[in-house]
This record gives sequence, C-alpha cells and structure tokens, in this order.
Amino acid sequence: MDDIKFWSKISAEIMEEVHEAINPLVGERKAGKIVKMGADGTPTKLIDLVAEEKVVEVLESADRPLTLVSEEIGRIEIGMGQSEVVFVVDPLDGTFNAVKNIPAYGISLAIAEITDHDRSMTMNDIELGFVKNFATGDIYQAAKGAGASLNGDAIFNSAENDVSQSSIGAYIYRGDMEMVDNLCKLVRRMRILGSVAIELCYVADGTYDAFLDVRGNLRIVDVSAAKLIAQEAGGLVTDEYNQNLNSKLNVLERTSIVASGNENIHKELLKILGGI
Amino acid sequence: MDDIKFWSKISAEIMEEVHEAINPLVGERKAGKIVKMGADGTPTKLIDLVAEEKVVEVLESADRPLTLVSEEIGRIEIGMGQSEVVFVVDPLDGTFNAVKNIPAYGISLAIAEITDHDRSMTMNDIELGFVKNFATGDIYQAAKGAGASLNGDAIFNSAENDVSQSSIGAYIYRGDMEMVDNLCKLVRRMRILGSVAIELCYVADGTYDAFLDVRGNLRIVDVSAAKLIAQEAGGLVTDEYNQNLNSKLNVLERTSIVASGNENIHKELLKILGGI
Repeated sequence: MDDIKFWSKISAEIMEEVHEAINPLVGERKAGKIVKMGADGTPTKLIDLVAEEKVVEVLESADRPLTLVSEEIGRIEIGMGQSEVVFVVDPLDGTFNAVKNIPAYGISLAIAEITDHDRSMTMNDIELGFVKNFATGDIYQAAKGAGASLNGDAIFNSAENDVSQSSIGAYIYRGDMEMVDNLCKLVRRMRILGSVAIELCYVADGTYDAFLDVRGNLRIVDVSAAKLIAQEAGGLVTDEYNQNLNSKLNVLERTSIVASGNENIHKELLKILGGI
Repeated sequence: MDDIKFWSKISAEIMEEVHEAINPLVGERKAGKIVKMGADGTPTKLIDLVAEEKVVEVLESADRPLTLVSEEIGRIEIGMGQSEVVFVVDPLDGTFNAVKNIPAYGISLAIAEITDHDRSMTMNDIELGFVKNFATGDIYQAAKGAGASLNGDAIFNSAENDVSQSSIGAYIYRGDMEMVDNLCKLVRRMRILGSVAIELCYVADGTYDAFLDVRGNLRIVDVSAAKLIAQEAGGLVTDEYNQNLNSKLNVLERTSIVASGNENIHKELLKILGGI
C-alpha cells in the first residue's frame, strides 16, 4: 500500500477527533435520541451522527480523493478525482454502551487501496485496520503482513487449546436454543459486552480465546478492521461455515464471524455451529 | 447506625488502598495464578489474595473491634473486644476481568451494626454499602433510608416499564434452556459483563433496566452492598421466588437475585423464572 504513513496519520486524527466529539454525550440520555434512518437500514442515534460527521470532516481535510463506506451515510466519494483508497468505518460501535456509559464502545477504521477501478473491493483488500476503545483509550491496530499491536506493543492470540477452559464472547440468534445450549456446555465462560469490534480485538490480544457472532446481521463496517487485527495477531477468522470472510465493502452486506486464538477451539466451535 | 462517618471513612480508605494494591497486577497473567483454596470453596487467585490482605490490613488499622466476612478468609474477628460491626466484603468481584483487563471489576463492601450479640445477622441488617469499579474509578454507595449515589450524585432506577424494550444483565444456569429461550425472547438486549456487584449497581443508576442471577451459587459477599444500593435507588430486589433476600452473613450461603428498576419488568421476569 502506498502512503501507509499518511493514511495512518489521518486515521489517528480521526480516532482522536471523534473521541473528543462524542465525549460530552457519553452517558447522556439525549445521545440515544433517534435522529434519522441510517443507510444500513437501522436508526441513527444522535451520538452516531456526531461521530460520523467528524469522520467526514477529518477525511475532507485530508485533501486526497477517497471513498468512505460508513454505517449511517452509506457510500460517498470525498475529494477531487479517482479515489485512491476506501475507508470502511463504523464511527461508533457499541452505541448503547456509549449512551449508558458502559466502558466498551469505540471506532472501527479499515482501509483498502484501490488498485483496479473496475474490480469490486472486498474485505480481503483491507490493508490497514484500527479500533479504538474510547472508554479505555486503548488503540488496536494492524497492517497486512506486519502484525498487530495494542497501544504500540505487539499482541498475540491466546494459546488456550482446551475449549472446556475457554472464555468467549458470543452473539447467537435468539431462535436457536439448541445451539446456545451446546455452546454453553462446551465453553468455560461467556461474555456479552456489546461491542463486536472491541470483542474481536479481545481475540487478537488473548483476552478472549474466541468470539462469535452468528446472528446473521453483522455489518462489514463493524468487523473489517478487527478481522485484520485478529488475523495479524495470529488468530483464525472465518464465517460460521468455515469460509473466508470476503464480503463486498458496502453497508448492506451481512455476514457471520467466528474468530479464535487456536485452531482446535475454532474447530470445536464450528462443529457446534454446524459449519463443519 | 452509630458512627456512620467513621465506618464510611474506613470504607473509602479500603477502596483506595485495595485499588492501589491490585493495579500493578491488572492484565497480568500471574494475577490469575491459583494460590490457595478460599473459605467459600472456590480457588483463590493471586490478585484476590492481594486485595483481601489489604482489606484486612486497613481494618486492623481502624483499631475498633469488628467482624470481617470475606470471600477467601471466611469469618474473622479483628481488634479487641466484642465486635461493633460486621464488614461483608468481596475484595475483588470480577477476578477474570481484572486478570484480563476487561473494564468491569471492583470491590464490594457492606456494613451491618451489631445491636444484639445473640442474634444471627442477615442481609437485612446491612446499613451501608459501597461498590467501586476499579476500572473506571466509579464509586456507588448507599446508606439505609438515605438513598444511593454515584460519585456523590444521587442515582435512581430506570423508569422503563416495557419489558420488550428492556436491557438486562443475566446469568442463568446453563442447564435450563427453556428459561434462556423465554428470557431472550422477552427482553430487548442482554449483557454479560462478568461482575455481579457492578451490574447490580447498573440497575441502581438505570444503566440496566434489570439484572438477574439465577445460577443458584451467588454468594452473599457479592451482593450485600449492591442490593442496598439498588434498593435505595428505588429498585426492587428479590430472589427468583419473589422473596426478600435475607441470607445469613457468611461465605457459604448461596442465593439467587432479581433486581429491577420497574415493578412491571420485575413481575415479567419472575414469571419467566417461575417465581410467580
């Protein structure tokens, strides 16, 4: 990727400015007020809008042609000329937590370079990923082929290979109780923090042994950055059918995700989910 | 209660000193090393022991006769003469989170005055309660009949009365899938953060509309403080059979808990749990 330093600097600026912009709204009732319908088909809350407007503002100030794919706004071109890169952004993942001041909410930024303007870009094209947990200030990042880090220190996936000792984050469609039952019996400990981007980063740094979201309505903007971060930290990431996540970079695509620190745990989880 | 100021000052000191003592261990693998078996029948980890030793140290420095009921040590008398009060303490609730640096872990301190030395004390005798989330620094507290506060500001339970719109924290025994199924269909949003004390305080300040733990192995030390805080904030707290929580103040007692901001939601949850 050309100009990795430039786009990293812009990303750092976005993370800082969005953090500042939303901070006065955290824990405030008005932050959760629905202000419009988002391009992804779900309602946009005030704090989401404030976050996204700041993303657009910083990207406009970059003065380079680019495409933004973001939860509320959909897909827009910014700057003059043919886009050099695609920014895939969830300006605020974990909106409910931010409104309620539960300390797990943040931004997800993923960047793909456009090398062929006739080809549809997919998640495989993502080369840079950033996730910032605004509540703790932690910044997770990864560059394709160059590993992952947390606040500048290299991070690695969990080495736990015994699924009965595993701690996982899990989001399951509420209808499938047999799956929930089997999963609960399989693992040691379960968490539902309410931020997919942050919980996927927990797989990257070994906080979780695995994470899965098989509700079937997970958006590309939520996972594009954290997927790269988890993989670059040594983790395995597939969908519930053990397939590579390779959705197109738009806000309407939906996917499932299973991310594990260890191959054996990944296999055991996929068995429960019916994927192998 | 006599000397409420004195015991509040001691409690503030405990919260601060334990926080300082465990801080270097947060996120460290060695923090999770099992060092002995606790009086409550579960393994004691290094960070639990460091926290409890600091509690004992501060209480000894208070130079007043008291009884401590705490997770690892069980029940001990501190100071000379007949105990004036019972301290019911979980030095570190959310140990896994502390070891993994997931931002929901803290201390629970509940205090009951001993007025009749021939009578067994119960949770009903608790007159002061403190919960500090070490990860965020938030301090929740309550005094019987005097309301509850978060960092000094009065807090109140959620006014949400539509259970289909409710956000709850829920811990259910893994065997009962019909209950899980019914519950998932009933509420809007579920969280499992991994700290009962903190999540009960989330009911007190309206972050959650309700919280329940019906695994059947909840300890008195985990809930004594937060039960008072939730009630003083206007919440309803019972066990799964809609009975007042009135267990004896020791580490071997086990209970269930259902805490709600609103009467209607409490009733709907109890119906699902089979309690009414």
